[in-house]
Amino acid sequence: MPLAPHASPSPDDPFRERTRRELLVAAETLIAAEGHRAVHARRVAQMVGCAVGTVYNVYRDIDGLILAANLRTLAALGDVLRAARDAAREQGLEARLMALAVAYVGFASAHQQRWRAVFEHRLPDDYPVPPSFYDDRRGLLGLIEDEIADAMPDADGEAGQDTARQDAARALFSATHGNVLLALDAKLGPVEPGRCERQIRFIVHHVVAGLTRDHR
Amino acid sequence: MPLAPHASPSPDDPFRERTRRELLVAAETLIAAEGHRAVHARRVAQMVGCAVGTVYNVYRDIDGLILAANLRTLAALGDVLRAARDAAREQGLEARLMALAVAYVGFASAHQQRWRAVFEHRLPDDYPVPPSFYDDRRGLLGLIEDEIADAMPDADGEAGQDTARQDAARALFSATHGNVLLALDAKLGPVEPGRCERQIRFIVHHVVAGLTRDHR
Repeated sequence: MPLAPHASPSPDDPFRERTRRELLVAAETLIAAEGHRAVHARRVAQMVGCAVGTVYNVYRDIDGLILAANLRTLAALGDVLRAARDAAREQGLEARLMALAVAYVGFASAHQQRWRAVFEHRLPDDYPVPPSFYDDRRGLLGLIEDEIADAMPDADGEAGQDTARQDAARALFSATHGNVLLALDAKLGPVEPGRCERQIRFIVHHVVAGLTRDHR
Repeated sequence: MPLAPHASPSPDDPFRERTRRELLVAAETLIAAEGHRAVHARRVAQMVGCAVGTVYNVYRDIDGLILAANLRTLAALGDVLRAARDAAREQGLEARLMALAVAYVGFASAHQQRWRAVFEHRLPDDYPVPPSFYDDRRGLLGLIEDEIADAMPDADGEAGQDTARQDAARALFSATHGNVLLALDAKLGPVEPGRCERQIRFIVHHVVAGLTRDHR
């Protein structure tokens, strides 16, 4: 794909920075309205009023642009989850985990296409993913790990090895994710308000009962 | 889309039946190799050696063809799950539920694109879905409901109303599905063999401990 002649400014070029931001907003708009498969260089370039080559020059390729949009979605999700955690700080473990889960359900429902893009967008195997992407993901799982830390005090493994506590956090996150996903897709039948939350509570309730029995 | 002149035989026409089968095999081949988004009328028609219009005449549209392929995948998944259930019949509840989960993980891993097509393919809202699609889904959830029936004996609700047992089966299925999906996508970090199963066991173990404590 040829680059437009004006599309190679220095990294601190204010024009380049403004274009980067505008392209990101255009991509987010398309994702929110139509999903990440609607993000094409030609469309975002047209929305921003730049050359198609500029998209590639600034974001390397369309995957890079979608990845940048997904990073913003992960950051927004993190804000929502941390706010829920803070509001539930004085409550018991089940209520604290449910506060995170309910916030997750709410975010996924309110920003369904952006949320789907984070999970459905697949990068080529050798794609240079910025470390911040893994950090943000790690941070979300860390929210769950922090909550269950008291109930799983013996879970610290060797350096570099995953601990039972990390497995538990992934298990709970994935369980919640699966319940939200199949509810939003209505893949198991029609969605009823509250049913998804009831299903997640069924899991969380028993896990918390088990953990607090095992470790306290 | 114009129909080919020869593409309107009577429903019991052996030519039509053979074409229907061949188109289905072609669609399954494409789904297995490239995913359900690769199924286009032109490609399957070319693979089978029929007119493009025949695809629409036999399957209504591409959604109808993908739906037919997904029904076959659901049936194959059902066979695998029922075999796992039968093999674990003499074991305890946790082992029986884990046998179903492990069979599910195995099917999803071995037939990843076909499995994804069942969950990722979305039909238009007013699409006439054959009742067998819902029956097959219901049947899969029914496998879990049957296993937990003894542990949730008080769960029968009013006619037409979902019971706590049905909610529990959906919760467990969705939790397993979420753990498999995020493991196969490696969305939470690199996949390790056995880790996905360990995560599912964490959920199943605590749920079974809770159910058997509550109800026995």
